[in-house]
Formats: sequence, C-alpha cells, structure tokens
Amino acid sequence: MVQKSKRSWTTRRDAKRERIKQAEALLDGKYVKTNDITYALETLIHPNDKVVLEGNNQKQASFLSEALSEVNSNIIHDLHMIMSSVSRPEHLDIFEKGIANRVDFSFAGPQSLRISQMIEDGQMQMGNIHTYLELYGRLFIDLIPSVALIAADQADAEGNLYTGANTEETPTIVEATAFREGIVIAQVNEKVDELPRVDIPSSWVDVVVVADQPYQLEALFTRNPRHITEIQILMAMMTLRGVYEKHQVQSLNHGIGFNTAAIELLLPTYGESLGLRGQICKHWAANPHPTLIPAIESGWIDSIHCFGGERGMEGYIAERPDVFFVGKDGSLRSNRALCQMAGQYAVDLFIGSTLQMDYGGNSSTVTHGRLAGFGGAPNMGHDPKGRRHSTPAWLDMMNPDDALVRGKKLVVQMMETYQQGNTPVFTERLDAVDVSKEAGLDIPPVMIYGEDVTHLVTEEGIAYLYKTDSIAERKEAIAAVAGVTPIGMEQTLKQKEHLRSKGIVAYPQDLEIRRSDAKRSLLAAQNVEDLMTWSDGLYEPPEQFRSYWP
Amino acid sequence: MVQKSKRSWTTRRDAKRERIKQAEALLDGKYVKTNDITYALETLIHPNDKVVLEGNNQKQASFLSEALSEVNSNIIHDLHMIMSSVSRPEHLDIFEKGIANRVDFSFAGPQSLRISQMIEDGQMQMGNIHTYLELYGRLFIDLIPSVALIAADQADAEGNLYTGANTEETPTIVEATAFREGIVIAQVNEKVDELPRVDIPSSWVDVVVVADQPYQLEALFTRNPRHITEIQILMAMMTLRGVYEKHQVQSLNHGIGFNTAAIELLLPTYGESLGLRGQICKHWAANPHPTLIPAIESGWIDSIHCFGGERGMEGYIAERPDVFFVGKDGSLRSNRALCQMAGQYAVDLFIGSTLQMDYGGNSSTVTHGRLAGFGGAPNMGHDPKGRRHSTPAWLDMMNPDDALVRGKKLVVQMMETYQQGNTPVFTERLDAVDVSKEAGLDIPPVMIYGEDVTHLVTEEGIAYLYKTDSIAERKEAIAAVAGVTPIGMEQTLKQKEHLRSKGIVAYPQDLEIRRSDAKRSLLAAQNVEDLMTWSDGLYEPPEQFRSYWP
Repeated sequence: MVQKSKRSWTTRRDAKRERIKQAEALLDGKYVKTNDITYALETLIHPNDKVVLEGNNQKQASFLSEALSEVNSNIIHDLHMIMSSVSRPEHLDIFEKGIANRVDFSFAGPQSLRISQMIEDGQMQMGNIHTYLELYGRLFIDLIPSVALIAADQADAEGNLYTGANTEETPTIVEATAFREGIVIAQVNEKVDELPRVDIPSSWVDVVVVADQPYQLEALFTRNPRHITEIQILMAMMTLRGVYEKHQVQSLNHGIGFNTAAIELLLPTYGESLGLRGQICKHWAANPHPTLIPAIESGWIDSIHCFGGERGMEGYIAERPDVFFVGKDGSLRSNRALCQMAGQYAVDLFIGSTLQMDYGGNSSTVTHGRLAGFGGAPNMGHDPKGRRHSTPAWLDMMNPDDALVRGKKLVVQMMETYQQGNTPVFTERLDAVDVSKEAGLDIPPVMIYGEDVTHLVTEEGIAYLYKTDSIAERKEAIAAVAGVTPIGMEQTLKQKEHLRSKGIVAYPQDLEIRRSDAKRSLLAAQNVEDLMTWSDGLYEPPEQFRSYWP
Repeated sequence: MVQKSKRSWTTRRDAKRERIKQAEALLDGKYVKTNDITYALETLIHPNDKVVLEGNNQKQASFLSEALSEVNSNIIHDLHMIMSSVSRPEHLDIFEKGIANRVDFSFAGPQSLRISQMIEDGQMQMGNIHTYLELYGRLFIDLIPSVALIAADQADAEGNLYTGANTEETPTIVEATAFREGIVIAQVNEKVDELPRVDIPSSWVDVVVVADQPYQLEALFTRNPRHITEIQILMAMMTLRGVYEKHQVQSLNHGIGFNTAAIELLLPTYGESLGLRGQICKHWAANPHPTLIPAIESGWIDSIHCFGGERGMEGYIAERPDVFFVGKDGSLRSNRALCQMAGQYAVDLFIGSTLQMDYGGNSSTVTHGRLAGFGGAPNMGHDPKGRRHSTPAWLDMMNPDDALVRGKKLVVQMMETYQQGNTPVFTERLDAVDVSKEAGLDIPPVMIYGEDVTHLVTEEGIAYLYKTDSIAERKEAIAAVAGVTPIGMEQTLKQKEHLRSKGIVAYPQDLEIRRSDAKRSLLAAQNVEDLMTWSDGLYEPPEQFRSYWP
C-alpha cells in the first residue's frame, strides 16, 4: 500500500480554538465590548488570512470594516480580502495601510476610480472580478474564509442573529465560514432579550459586538418618479408592448434604474389599458422597489422574492405578506444567493442598461480608469444553458430549425442612444478591451455578451436580436435603432425597411404607439408622495427622497 | 389616480392559521403523534395545494410520503407535487389514487418507466423536468409551496432541527415555504433534549412528527473498487494525463460512477508518479465518496464541499475537519443548493457519462420509455456564461482569435464506445428527440449539449472537442475515438492522423500511456476493505458493500 501522509487533520479547528482562547479576556460569552473590537480583531485575525467582509450595494458591515482599518499593520498584514462590494473608503484604506494586499470582489461602483489607481500603484493585488454567485460559490471551493465579518440587526444573549429585511448575503457567508472552522464575527445594531425570529442560529456564530451605530444601509433602489423623462416613458411603452406583451413575460428581474422604474409605473395605466393584468409580470426576482407599489396595489403582482431590503419599505411589506417573503415576525426575509439563483434560472426575462455597447451588442460598465465590477447582472443577463424547463416566453425565442430545439432567456438591453455628455452609447470597441490590458486582467471585463442579448430597446425602436442569423445581421439590427449615432447614420432607409419587413426591427408605429402619447401623466405616480399615497401611508421614504427640488 | 384593488393581503397567512387551528387537537406544541400523521395531513393540506416533498437521490422524507399516500382522496386531491426525485413507489401511488395530479421534478431514475406510462395513461400531468437549481429557483418565483414535507435527523422540544450530514436540500425547501406563509412539516428520526447543532431554527418549522423508522437514505455514491475494470483504468489514466494534468485542473466535480472512482483511486499511485500532488484536484464539489479516502490520506485534497452525505463516512469525516465542511458538533454539513451553485460557477471541470451521444456530441440519459430526468448534471455540465473569474484551466479553453476573449468550463464526457448489450453509445439521433414528442414535452430532454462538451474520453483516446472549429470537425473528432462503432468505422486512418497532427485527438501512446500498464494493481484500493484500512478503520461501509462476491 502507498504511504500515507502523517499530519494533523484539525489544523483549522486548532487555530480557531487557539485564537478564541487568546481573545478570552475580551469575551463575555460571545460578546466583545464595543470599544474592544479593534484589539479583538488583532487577536482573532492572523496575517495572510482570507477575510470575507460583508458588504454589497445595500447592507455594509461598516463598524467592522472601520475597526479593521484601525488594526496595527505590524500585527495584521497581507490579508486576502473577499468582499462583494468595495464601496467604503476604509475598504481601500486597509490596503494603503498594508493590512491587506489582495482582493477578490464583485462590485466596486463608488470606489472604482481609486481601485484602478491602487492596482497601478501596486498597493493592491487583484484577484478576480466576479458576479455575486461566482464569489459565493468560491467561498465553498477555493476561497474558503478564515474569518467572516458580518452585520445583523439584533442578537440575543446566546448569539442567535436576526437579520430581517436585509438578510441578503449573511447566511451564505456565515455558512461557508462557520462550517469550515472559520471565525464568524457579527456586528449587531442592538442586543435584545428576545429576537423577532432567528435568521442565523447561534451555533454558527463565534463573536458578537454591538456596533457604535447601526450598519450602513443604502436606499439604492428608490427611484423618485419625478425624475422619469418622457423618453424613458416612450421606451417603457415599447418594452411593455414589444417585449413583455409580445412574448407573454410572466416572471422577470428588474434592477436599479429609471427605465425600469418607468415600466413599473406604467403597468397600472398603460398596461391596464392593454388588458395585460394577470397575464404578464406576475412573478418577480427584485428588490422591493417603491415604484412597484402601484402595480402591487392594482393587483398585478403575485410574488416578489428579494435580494435585499429597501429602506422605508418595511411597514408596507409587513402589510403585504401575500406578495413578499416574510418571517413569522412579519418582516421581509431577503436572500441574495437564492434570489440570484432564481434570477438566473427561474425567470423569463432580465432587463438592464449600459454605458457602452459595441457593434456586436457586447456591453460593459467598465470604462477607462474605472474598474466598476459587475454585481449580479452577468449572472442574470445571460442565457443559462443548464436550464431545462420551459415557459411560453422562453420557448418564443427558439429556433425551430434545430432538431435539438431549445428556448432562450430574454435578455433585454434598454438605453438611450446618447449618454450624458453627448457621447454615443454605441462604440466600435469597448473601453473594457483596453482596460483589461492596462489592469492586467486575464479577459476583458464584459458585462453582457452580445450573443446573449435578445432585445435592444432605444428611443428609436426595438431590435429583435434573437431573430438575427449572423453577426453581420445583428450589427445591422443594432444600427437600425441607433438613431443619429455614427453606426446609426451609416444605415440606409432601405436597410431599415428590410429589417422591419423581416420583423427584426420595430418602431413605435409598428407597436401602435404614438411618440406624443409618451407623457408623464401616464405614470401611476408622479413623485414619491404619490407612492406614499398608493401605499396607504405604509411606505415611509428616507428623508432625502421627500423634499421637492425644482 | 388609478383605482386600487380591494382585497385581503393576508390570504396565505389566514389560510395557514386556519389550518393549524383545525389541527389543534392533534398538536402538542409543534408535535403530532406518529400515528396521527395521516389525519394531520388531511387537515393541514388542502386540495390543489402545491406540495414540495423532500427527496433526492440520497435522503427521502419516506415517512411523510407514505403518510401522504394514505390520505383520503375525497378530502385531499389534485395536489401539485414538487419533488427533486420521484423515486419511491408511493411517490407515484399518490397519483394513481388521485391525491395528486401534477408533478414538477428533477430526477426519476428508479421510477422512470412507470412515470412514462402514467403520463401516457393521463394519470399524471407533467409540468417540467428540471435541474436541481432550476427547481429550487422556481420555489421562490412561480412554484411557491403551500406545504413542505421534509426530513431531519433530530428535533428538540421547540422544533429546532438537526439535519447533520444529510442537510442536502432541506434548508432551501424550508426557506421557500416558511417565509411565504406555507406550512413546514418535518419528520424526524428522534426527539432529543439537546441538538448537536441547529441546522434549521424552530421559527421556520410548524409541525414535527417522530417517524416510525429513520428516513430512507441511499448509499448511492459508494463504488466498490473491486468492480473497476482495466478499461476504466485506462480511460482514467488518459483523463488524468490528457485532461487534468494538461490543463492543470485544480477544482472539479465528480459524480457517481466507476470511471471517476477509478480516477480517484489513481491519484495516490499513477498521479503521484507524475508528480502532480499539490498541483491538481485540490478543491472538490462532490459527495464524500469512499473512493476519495486514499487521495485524502495521501495529501492530495485540500477541501471537499458536499451536496449530501454518504452512509458509512460519518466517522471518517468527523476526524478530517481540515478537508470537509463540518459543524461545531464535528459532523458534516452538506447543502445541495450551495454545492450545485459552486459546482456550476466555481470549479474548473465537470466530468460525466452517458448512455447515448449523438454525432454532434449531444447526450441524454432519457431513452425510449424512460423519463429519467437530470438531477444536477446539466447545471454543472455546461459552460456558465455568467462566469467572469478565471483560472488556468478555464483560460486554457479560450479561443485567442476573439477580441472579447474568454475561457470556458471543462466539460468532459467519459464512456466506453459500447454499452451493455453490445449497443454502440454513439447514435445518429438521440432517443430523447422521439421521447419528447411521445411525452408531449416542449423540448427534447438533452442532458449535455454538444457545444458544451470540451473533451470526450473513450477507451480509444481523447477528442479535444473545444479545439474543433465547426460542427463537421466536431463530428470527425468524435468519430476518431469511436472505435468500431458505425461512426468510428466510417473514418479513415488518414483523417485520424490529420486530427492527431492538429492536436484535436490523442491516443494512449500520445500521452505516454501503454495500454498494458492499465492494471488493477494501479488502484490505491482493490476493494472496500482496503478503503477501510486507508481510513484507519474510520470508514464503516454499509453491510451490502462488505461481503465478497465471486
């Protein structure tokens, strides 16, 4: 028989026990005093650890990230940080101070400029840019955390956690850490005698600290209807008729953005006039957008599963348990991993927007000097080839010529032909191609690949890209809705008419929409106050959305 | 303002309360007496409910499924069953008795013949065949359960659950039900004063019943090394050299099967002789196969995340916490949804086998008269287009001609050219195409699509399908390793040599493997007893694997 290796099989467990023992003087049960947190982290974390820091585009473990940025870098250094979102200043301070030197992340909106610079300056080694699901998956494979720094609303004396509406990614991060002998450290807004419900059992949690203030929570998915333009309304009308109605889209994902907020606010008005209630848009994988309230109240929506919560929606959700996923306490249970999974595999349609699209339909939000990352869009914005179940919309995409015929997910890109600053959205070559070389990435950071885009909606019309049978024809279809951008102006009227006759392009008149009908009065709510009214006063928007601005 | 609908928003909550109230006389806290379960189900379930019944290829809620098959169909009828696996006789009895009339499922190995017949006879309406992740995703979108029937090892007085090694799909099913005002009914093997750990918090559980016997648990992933043939060893050697070593595969999924068991048992012998330890096969998404023990003991494997448990491996896993995901009690924590997610997005390679492959490389396990379903294979056995992070193996698949270059997941199909009964595995047309018409399916039930297969390994050699640049060339490459099957015999030696010179095909000699070296003595274990020895007596195989057969 081959020789067996002689080794300890409990190195992770032993290391954990030793660290907790070292921190014993700081611990009262599982609790560390608020003021002791930095010292506790210096004891519980070791150099070269893989540390997963909770924080996505909504909830942030802000107390723990600040504490981590204050540890002594002679004691704690060369950490490998794993974080869904690089979004707070101290997320990068820890690299400048030498506390960490490597990062794997998913999204870096607010800090994307500074990240680019730090990589160039050699202060940060870049691992990979991921979608959420990839990053979560790697926590169980090759990025297994030594320590997790997470955020919860409440803990009880034993260390059971209540994460409530913003459960988000907490259970996934905790599971990967707790069940691999890692150390789970939770900041909580408050310690209570009895939790409204248990989201994370105490046996998964090692250390709890009451934060000096509640965790940071962004109201990122609140869109004030007053800022929706009539061009957006026109695009929304076309999308409703030319995509949602045409293909009988029953389940879908909407993200952030005024374009999709416009669609949500047209359901009870324009959608109602088309007689579509009960036929389309019944099942959602989406955050609880306030702009969904009128559609919910009008009986359009059967169910919404949420990635995260949304500030101000708590009271409304509690009174609408037929629509939302709530616990026995009545508050929302979100789950980012499960909602991404559902958004990838179980919905008919993803709709998104972009800053740049090349002539092949590929798009990216990464532009020169900005490493923004992806979040969840590429996960939901592609055709999942592992899907085997069918729905009417999915089947509608199929190419009947193929013996092994299958459907396709609807992936819609919706944007105006010109972006801010008079820059055409269409470009011969994505900035991402150059950025990948400059930043030393293995591949260009493409958000959505052209081959996955089934529909392109601009203020000009809709290109049914799934009907094109070559890359050349796809480019022509894009040009046909590209307006007066360079690619659009290259095309002749005859080419456009040819595509239109083949059903590859549709203009407003083909959808029985008059441009002059696209009025703000069509929106079911004109402003945040209208949303409050729709909600019977249950929606309580954060202060910054309440004020009128001229 | 548009008119709001007048309705109750708590219909699900009210229905649940009413049902629990009706069952009050049967409940002592959350507990129902073992003998009262059928009557309890008749009270807690209503006609037309969506009922998710736990059961996959390992753990089965067998007590509850039997109880369900005994309810009075005048009281409970027309249920819509959602089940990962249709595998026990009573799973179909409930349709014959009219208790249920519709099914959405994922896998139906043992009952695949009977399902086909029942659909034909109109006793069962077929929803869809899914992969696990799709089915789980739909639980949060458009297949939201009214009732979940699940299985756990232990419960405490409050109804907290311990699911231990076979946690599997329980948390996912429970989350979808508990947080949408559904009723969660758990069968447990025993009620205890204190749980080893909490896997499911009691506030997610409504009703608990102690089963009359432990839940059914199959040792499905135990492969006795004594049944591994020398042809399988030859294929395993080629795969190790020509795929795993060549592309530096660091993370991977292995499923059931003797082919992959052979690879596992060659790592400490042949793999060691190639100097590959520490370089390849370090991170796994896999069940705890006993045939992995020698590789673990020889220091090959850093981590294994598991879909489920495996009978007999409990004691071994408890002593190897550096490798497995375990709780504070020392026992395995599996999670089918998270492991499928990781297996889809976070590993370099999937390897599988099939009963039929067409000349385009498409394969299916569905053959005439058998609706077998898929399980997890299509989810892991495709190139996930939402992946954005890179690894050396993934990058090795890329086509450098493309400006928007990207890598690809390695999807390997490994099988002998002839199956049992002297049937060639290669066929011009998959049975699945006809089956889809006969059973009224929307699309043919293909397991793995040819466009996703990167490597095909037979006893003849390896076809590097990812290098082919047309469907015609892919077919040629398949033919080049198809031996004396019809498609193989059509090919000339000259064609083979041409593909070989292009690196599209490799034969054993190209990999420095002599067919005569493929001996059973190369296996690190010859039989189950050897595995027990490797494990220092920690592995305790179920009785049926211990006996010698001539």
